[in-house]
Amino acid sequence: MASIGHVTAQRMDFDEPLPLRSGAVLPAYSLVYETYGTLNAARSNAVLVCHALNASHHVAGTYEQQPHNVGWWDNLVGPGKPLDTDRLFVIGVNNPGSCFGSTGPMHVNPATGRVWGADFPVVTVEDWVDAQARLLTRLGIERLAAVLGGSLGGMQALAWTMRHPDRVDHCIAVATAPSLSAQNIAFNEVARRAIVTDPDFHGGHYHDHGVLPRRGLRVARMLGHITYLSDDAMDVKFGRRLRHGALAFTTQDIEFQIESYLRHQGDKFSDYFDANTYLLITRALDYFDPAAAHGGDLARAFAGAKRQRFLLVSFTTDWRFAPARSREIVKALVDNGIDVSYAEIDAPHGHDAFLLDDPRYHRVMAAYFDGIAARAGLPARARDV
Amino acid sequence: MASIGHVTAQRMDFDEPLPLRSGAVLPAYSLVYETYGTLNAARSNAVLVCHALNASHHVAGTYEQQPHNVGWWDNLVGPGKPLDTDRLFVIGVNNPGSCFGSTGPMHVNPATGRVWGADFPVVTVEDWVDAQARLLTRLGIERLAAVLGGSLGGMQALAWTMRHPDRVDHCIAVATAPSLSAQNIAFNEVARRAIVTDPDFHGGHYHDHGVLPRRGLRVARMLGHITYLSDDAMDVKFGRRLRHGALAFTTQDIEFQIESYLRHQGDKFSDYFDANTYLLITRALDYFDPAAAHGGDLARAFAGAKRQRFLLVSFTTDWRFAPARSREIVKALVDNGIDVSYAEIDAPHGHDAFLLDDPRYHRVMAAYFDGIAARAGLPARARDV
Repeated sequence: MASIGHVTAQRMDFDEPLPLRSGAVLPAYSLVYETYGTLNAARSNAVLVCHALNASHHVAGTYEQQPHNVGWWDNLVGPGKPLDTDRLFVIGVNNPGSCFGSTGPMHVNPATGRVWGADFPVVTVEDWVDAQARLLTRLGIERLAAVLGGSLGGMQALAWTMRHPDRVDHCIAVATAPSLSAQNIAFNEVARRAIVTDPDFHGGHYHDHGVLPRRGLRVARMLGHITYLSDDAMDVKFGRRLRHGALAFTTQDIEFQIESYLRHQGDKFSDYFDANTYLLITRALDYFDPAAAHGGDLARAFAGAKRQRFLLVSFTTDWRFAPARSREIVKALVDNGIDVSYAEIDAPHGHDAFLLDDPRYHRVMAAYFDGIAARAGLPARARDV
Repeated sequence: MASIGHVTAQRMDFDEPLPLRSGAVLPAYSLVYETYGTLNAARSNAVLVCHALNASHHVAGTYEQQPHNVGWWDNLVGPGKPLDTDRLFVIGVNNPGSCFGSTGPMHVNPATGRVWGADFPVVTVEDWVDAQARLLTRLGIERLAAVLGGSLGGMQALAWTMRHPDRVDHCIAVATAPSLSAQNIAFNEVARRAIVTDPDFHGGHYHDHGVLPRRGLRVARMLGHITYLSDDAMDVKFGRRLRHGALAFTTQDIEFQIESYLRHQGDKFSDYFDANTYLLITRALDYFDPAAAHGGDLARAFAGAKRQRFLLVSFTTDWRFAPARSREIVKALVDNGIDVSYAEIDAPHGHDAFLLDDPRYHRVMAAYFDGIAARAGLPARARDV
């Protein structure tokens, strides 16, 4: 399969404020996005990819000056790939509140002239979907052939079918859940407390103090990584292997390779991720619960989505968003008589599997997109997957 | 069942240094302990209870001035209870390195006149067992009818059968593992990083600075609590219930009851637990791996334990030390032809189940101790469980 090659991020400015679920509004804002492939004359081949916690609009390809900065779903999106850019027009957009270019807490609040910091309004999955819908309108795309995402991105894909049911034909939600469990929220809360209680956090106005709450971000990321991997995958990859071959008997230094790996991940993350964004995005995860407005009845939440088709994909060893959570969604769709396909992939990698190049997973995605293309009257794939 | 009533902690001083697995030695030290019941004339009714991470020698009963300070295994130890103090002499001992009275990092290093802090030597499960054995010798107890513990306490019980096989007749190891998995170590490491990177930690010499690394301890404890409870138990107990009935849309304040619970647990813990002890005890967990000295062959680690009888107990929803880990131990014992009983209790509470009063679990324990008593020629239980 060919790579999509060099891509360029673009930016769209919006003057009209965005009303948010919290009751607040996001004033004038910008969205950064990328597109891959060509929008056809009928504008019937657009696919929106929604990103998860620490990802961005950079879904596929590389930047000319950054050959190693490969898009996070590059293995899925490109010429001849399951999301075949020879026939699809794929859009990745960075959500507001993020720290990768779209308006977020690192930017200046026009009302105060100060960096937003902790004053950035709380954004939800539904707000992101509304912002994405506006972007598509500006791009001249009235209707999506498909919306998709994994994890938190899957929640956005689901929300699209509820908030803008007339604008989307297919929804593909991978490794996701209809809401966080108490345990999921608990992990988020520990990560947030690590950040908020870092003395360098300064109530979220660390930019005013010229510091960054790196200690908190490191702990948050280390913890996150544990929940992305399966117990078994960790045992295979690291087990109890020592870093230096023999025990040093130390409480503060590294003994085991898994410690070294986690510290490295934490250090990297604290170099590029914004702490307020981490709080906002984990809260968006916590808040997503479309059944809540319907007395806890998830089927009723999907009652307006009868003309979409759905694909749900889960991974057997994903304990963060376990297959049982995807099955809840499948059941709610079936209860509505909605067309839904479900694949439970026997993969060892835990939640991270949705980002990996598992052949069974990718065959499911490729076959489903072949069906989407056929129904949309798009050409067959010209290249082999 | 009657409570054991008021108990009194005792203390024993040891002048002879304790050689440690690391190669260091612990100079003169003290152990705090409690006993329940009466040692019989034949000294054949002694049972040692080993404690886990944040527990102590205070296994049963209450203190006269602290009626709410109930021992951590009070539901298991007392007159007519599974560990029936009408016929057994039960001993609880606080391990060195702890923060509940036995010599630990909060005490003064006699060599320097300074609080030990981070200089306290690294102690292991094997070191604790050796210290416990010395205490028993001083108490005139050559041989234990049984040694038992849950979680880290279960590791100590197992180590007894390897290090002092002639001094113990029965080993009861509950909710434990033959070693930590990579995921277990990873959780410990995140907790340690939260503590060590707290600016108030001062490299472990916070006492010299008149501060305590409470922020780190809180995060560590919050994280620990998640791993003690099952996902399902958390959903039943907290679910997605809000603290104030409606969402406030806040990233730093509490929205969900689970957050409130975890913060409360973290606050309580940071009031009474010592940070250096937390590091030491999580490292003792990490280091325990009796198979390692035998090329990873756990069966060979138990080869010297042929005359003991074992009971292993696990809980179906314990994902910290899952039943599969207990089954590894059972297999290693069976491979040696050692007498082993195994109970896998269908309990909803996760790892915490070993501390709770589950009737099936307690019936297993009571029946096993009836067998111990019969083999030791002790009287039958006079009271009903």
